[in-house]
Amino acid sequence: MTARRQPVVGILGGGQLARMLALAAAPLGVKSLVVDSSADACAGQVAPLVVADWTDYEALERFAARVDVVTFDFENVPAETAHWLAQKVSVFPAPRALAVAQDRLAEKTLFHECGLPTPAFKAIDTRAELDQALAMIGAPAILKTRRLGYDGKGQFRIKTLADADAAWAALGAQATAHGLILEAFVPFDRELSVIAVRGRDGDFRTWPLTQNWHTDGVLSLSLAPAPDIASLQARATGLARTLAEKLEYVGVFALELFVKDGQLLGNEMAPRVHNSGHWTIEGALTSQFENHVRAVLGLPLGDTSARGLSAMFNWIGELPDAAPVLEAVDAHWHDYGKEPRTGRKVGHATVCAANAQQLVERLAGIAHALHRDQQADPAVRELG
Amino acid sequence: MTARRQPVVGILGGGQLARMLALAAAPLGVKSLVVDSSADACAGQVAPLVVADWTDYEALERFAARVDVVTFDFENVPAETAHWLAQKVSVFPAPRALAVAQDRLAEKTLFHECGLPTPAFKAIDTRAELDQALAMIGAPAILKTRRLGYDGKGQFRIKTLADADAAWAALGAQATAHGLILEAFVPFDRELSVIAVRGRDGDFRTWPLTQNWHTDGVLSLSLAPAPDIASLQARATGLARTLAEKLEYVGVFALELFVKDGQLLGNEMAPRVHNSGHWTIEGALTSQFENHVRAVLGLPLGDTSARGLSAMFNWIGELPDAAPVLEAVDAHWHDYGKEPRTGRKVGHATVCAANAQQLVERLAGIAHALHRDQQADPAVRELG
Ligand SMILES: Nc1ncnc2c1ncn2[C@@H]1O[C@H](COP(=O)(O)OP(=O)(O)O)[C@@H](O)[C@H]1O
Ligand SMILES: Nc1ncnc2c1ncn2[C@@H]1O[C@H](COP(=O)(O)OP(=O)(O)O)[C@@H](O)[C@H]1O
Ligand SMILES: [Mg+2]
Ligand SMILES: [Mg+2]
Repeated sequence: MTARRQPVVGILGGGQLARMLALAAAPLGVKSLVVDSSADACAGQVAPLVVADWTDYEALERFAARVDVVTFDFENVPAETAHWLAQKVSVFPAPRALAVAQDRLAEKTLFHECGLPTPAFKAIDTRAELDQALAMIGAPAILKTRRLGYDGKGQFRIKTLADADAAWAALGAQATAHGLILEAFVPFDRELSVIAVRGRDGDFRTWPLTQNWHTDGVLSLSLAPAPDIASLQARATGLARTLAEKLEYVGVFALELFVKDGQLLGNEMAPRVHNSGHWTIEGALTSQFENHVRAVLGLPLGDTSARGLSAMFNWIGELPDAAPVLEAVDAHWHDYGKEPRTGRKVGHATVCAANAQQLVERLAGIAHALHRDQQADPAVRELG
Repeated sequence: MTARRQPVVGILGGGQLARMLALAAAPLGVKSLVVDSSADACAGQVAPLVVADWTDYEALERFAARVDVVTFDFENVPAETAHWLAQKVSVFPAPRALAVAQDRLAEKTLFHECGLPTPAFKAIDTRAELDQALAMIGAPAILKTRRLGYDGKGQFRIKTLADADAAWAALGAQATAHGLILEAFVPFDRELSVIAVRGRDGDFRTWPLTQNWHTDGVLSLSLAPAPDIASLQARATGLARTLAEKLEYVGVFALELFVKDGQLLGNEMAPRVHNSGHWTIEGALTSQFENHVRAVLGLPLGDTSARGLSAMFNWIGELPDAAPVLEAVDAHWHDYGKEPRTGRKVGHATVCAANAQQLVERLAGIAHALHRDQQADPAVRELG
């Protein structure tokens, strides 16, 4: 028996994703070390935390020396930081893949290269270009920052051409620093996401497609496996695989899709574990968090099959009463240990069941007890 | 939205049980604070650790001020320490229940009061009493320390009356400090355990009975739900409930049973989460760790149903190769982050399946890949 050294995963960003990664890493005997600029970062409750910002290269140097591999909780870590770290230690996903996923223009261009159509789009640098793009694409449309947007932030919905001024007033100042993109608004039938994982050896797996509902641009509810996906699963998996291989991607990522008249359109990709994959903690044989840790460390990937059906409620702003979830059968409470704040993701709950009818009952029961019937309604309708 | 204070559970002892308690507490938004005399205690990898011993009342005073409730990873915390803490903060299970479970004599006496027979036993204080007891009970028998034994430690197996001298040589010195007890050796048909939980409000639940196999007094393999328990489950649950109510027990405990000719005999109780309940992490709707945290905090208890069948391999001394477990379907690796050491519990793996045949295949497949066919054999035979 020889003394051992446990592998250490360094995580850039200390939010709920880092927290759930660290909780999944521990049973594998893997230690986590988290970097965040805030000493309150909620992942710090379950793993050691280095308080530093993305340009504190002295702290990052010490951090790099303590970890075996670096990965991300936060996709908007500056490209320079990722590149700098990659010279000292393995970084997964690699900075190049991260860079593509950070830029809505690069991302959509890649989607097209992979054979995945997208909503019509146009990069915008000036007010005049916005007018030209609007003339081409028409309204409704969405003006978005190319970089740094998340949870519906950095977006302006243009309902009619008369909204162009308001859109420019809202986002024009960011045209130089972050770039802008105008997208046609797609009156989609459904929103789906593929959560996928690729290992260091190229092994590739996807969890069953997830159906998602957003409120004000923020995920509100997920349902997995998405109902009636027989015709879409293989195509979505194939696209995710092509994407992953082009990027030589390592780790978990999410591909967000719109379904319109039976066709798939690419919205964006997230180069990390994803909110629409939280159901995999209880609802799949291996969670997205565990498989991400396995992937970045070069361990064999786990089976991604679903156990049954799952639905996930997102808790935004503040947590509701936990009791109805704690009392329900096969319902699972996730409190991220954060302070409440408007618009903030503070927790989620996953409800699992063996079949659609049972899931509807559990979901509706919990939603009703919480006076949140509305939040569950779309899934109840989809399943019913 | 008002600022919140997360509940904090204080855990006495920082081994794998504390580690798995802390990992189960985190998703509930519950923080853990662990006390252990060793700065290396493996729970310290996932929760803050106070390094102090059980008589360091200054450190315990500061610890008590930081937690909402105190519980145990280690059942042999001195009774005085538990009593002293209970004057400052809620302690669950209460010191009285802990004291009973710490003493094989008190424990067996309680079993009889609850209508649960035990192997014939006799408290022993002197060498002469050992002879008298052996004359009554006969051989084979087991001489055990009344207190502080675990994992088969503090036991001597007396095969014939001629072994009395050797038994006394091994354990006689502990007669005064820890007390001794002689037990008839039971050639049992099976060993079972009930994992049970009782809430602060008296709500009581058990997981399905688990069947266990020991090697050299240490748990080697568990199988749950134990096969063919139709006639035993209700009786075992009833006994566990009676026991829990007599002790006004709060939290998870295990009741270890022998089955002989269809009858249940009480072996011992463990006043804490238990090795034979580790399968509940993946194999039950709510794990023993989560329900223990819920119980001691007064939260509603979760459903204790099994998802399917589970088997758990214990890893003793050092970890085998993880790959065959990581590669298997619905198999789950648990590395406690400990240094290898002879006889030490360093990890476990749980294998889940929908039915007996599938479990046999997965179990035998993993055991074979690890050259540990022997370890899986008893469950394979029981299921086959
Ligand atoms: N072009 C579009 N057409 C229709 N809905 C859209 C479009 N773009 C975004 N949305 C809606 O807004 C949500 C958030 O937008 P997204 O581009 O995914 O940004 P974020 O990075 O904030 O997730 C999407 O999930 C979708 O519901
Ligand atoms: N009286 C007995 N008859 C037969 N086997 C016994 C007896 N007592 C203990 N054993 C065996 O030894 C194991 C460990 O003994 P136990 O009393 O449970 O001590 P520990 O506190 O170490 O778990 C038991 O699980 C059982 O397999
Ligand atoms: Mg999105
Ligand atoms: Mg025992």
